[in-house]
Amino acid sequence: MFGASALDPDGPVLGIDPGLTRCGYGAVRREGPATVAVACGVMRTPLEDSLPARLATLEEEVTRLLAELTPSALSVERLLFQHNVRTAIAVGQASGVVLAAAARAGVPVTHYSPNEVKLAVTGSGTAEKAQVQAMVTRVLSLDAPPGSFDAADALALALCHVWQAPLHHATEAAGASSAGSGFQRAVEHALAREEAS
Amino acid sequence: MFGASALDPDGPVLGIDPGLTRCGYGAVRREGPATVAVACGVMRTPLEDSLPARLATLEEEVTRLLAELTPSALSVERLLFQHNVRTAIAVGQASGVVLAAAARAGVPVTHYSPNEVKLAVTGSGTAEKAQVQAMVTRVLSLDAPPGSFDAADALALALCHVWQAPLHHATEAAGASSAGSGFQRAVEHALAREEAS
Repeated sequence: MFGASALDPDGPVLGIDPGLTRCGYGAVRREGPATVAVACGVMRTPLEDSLPARLATLEEEVTRLLAELTPSALSVERLLFQHNVRTAIAVGQASGVVLAAAARAGVPVTHYSPNEVKLAVTGSGTAEKAQVQAMVTRVLSLDAPPGSFDAADALALALCHVWQAPLHHATEAAGASSAGSGFQRAVEHALAREEAS
Repeated sequence: MFGASALDPDGPVLGIDPGLTRCGYGAVRREGPATVAVACGVMRTPLEDSLPARLATLEEEVTRLLAELTPSALSVERLLFQHNVRTAIAVGQASGVVLAAAARAGVPVTHYSPNEVKLAVTGSGTAEKAQVQAMVTRVLSLDAPPGSFDAADALALALCHVWQAPLHHATEAAGASSAGSGFQRAVEHALAREEAS
């Protein structure tokens, strides 16, 4: 039950925004110069179930998602201390089962704060959720915005990791002078697509 | 992986005091008029491991404990909102994996606040940890106090549930006039033992 599977180094980056009532997820992958969405959505647990049953259901869903997508990395929102304590406990419980599932699947986890994610995706650490949703839609060339802010936030988490983690490698490969940041390149790519259409 | 096992109705009551660095557990069972300890201890996770790995380890330990002890009920400390938010998140994460493991094992969970537990075990909702430890040792007729406050607190959680849950049934069986509360009977039993020795 607890053996870690072999990690798929070519798997997408999966972003997860932990929550018990609504847990957003979104997976993205690099394809050449572009970054594309592989999956996104929201996992929910029945409000009428007991707390233990809901946590087990969430863990089961996350485990299934990890098995389906075989991500190479998990990007999870860092829980900050600005929320009230009641919320902190509930989000803590949800994040606990998400992180345990990741460890069992052998997928390394990186945490990003909400501000880091907003900054990476919109250029502003204080962006509104609608702005994050709009930029995720544009950068990933989605036909329509993700159906919920939770899914959009999860895609933004995944994008944040894709752009930050392999920066040195990408810079080396592309030549240091013209590479710029992953974010800059992705935005340029998105804008170029928009101008071309 | 997620199928619930059949519940053992004769299994002990398992108390768990959630924590990542130290997670106390203690199981007790009624034997005639007495309540006896079945097991107690502390589960620890390596400080040097990553948070996801530690949560997975804790969940694995709890799952193993549930399989070994086949408890009929789990008594878990209710997380209160008096701690600081950082602590609340960490304890929330630990409790999340404990509760998910319980749901998977099909063991029903009841929460008790620290004050309820202290009141049940010592007669005072504001008792010190040492007082809880002393009463647990006395009531369960232990040869020595549990090695840690975490284990003692977990035994107290289990005792609290044993005394509260089957109260009506016990009262019926023993005759309403002489039964008293489970707590009273257990204390009387413990004191009688002490006087006899």
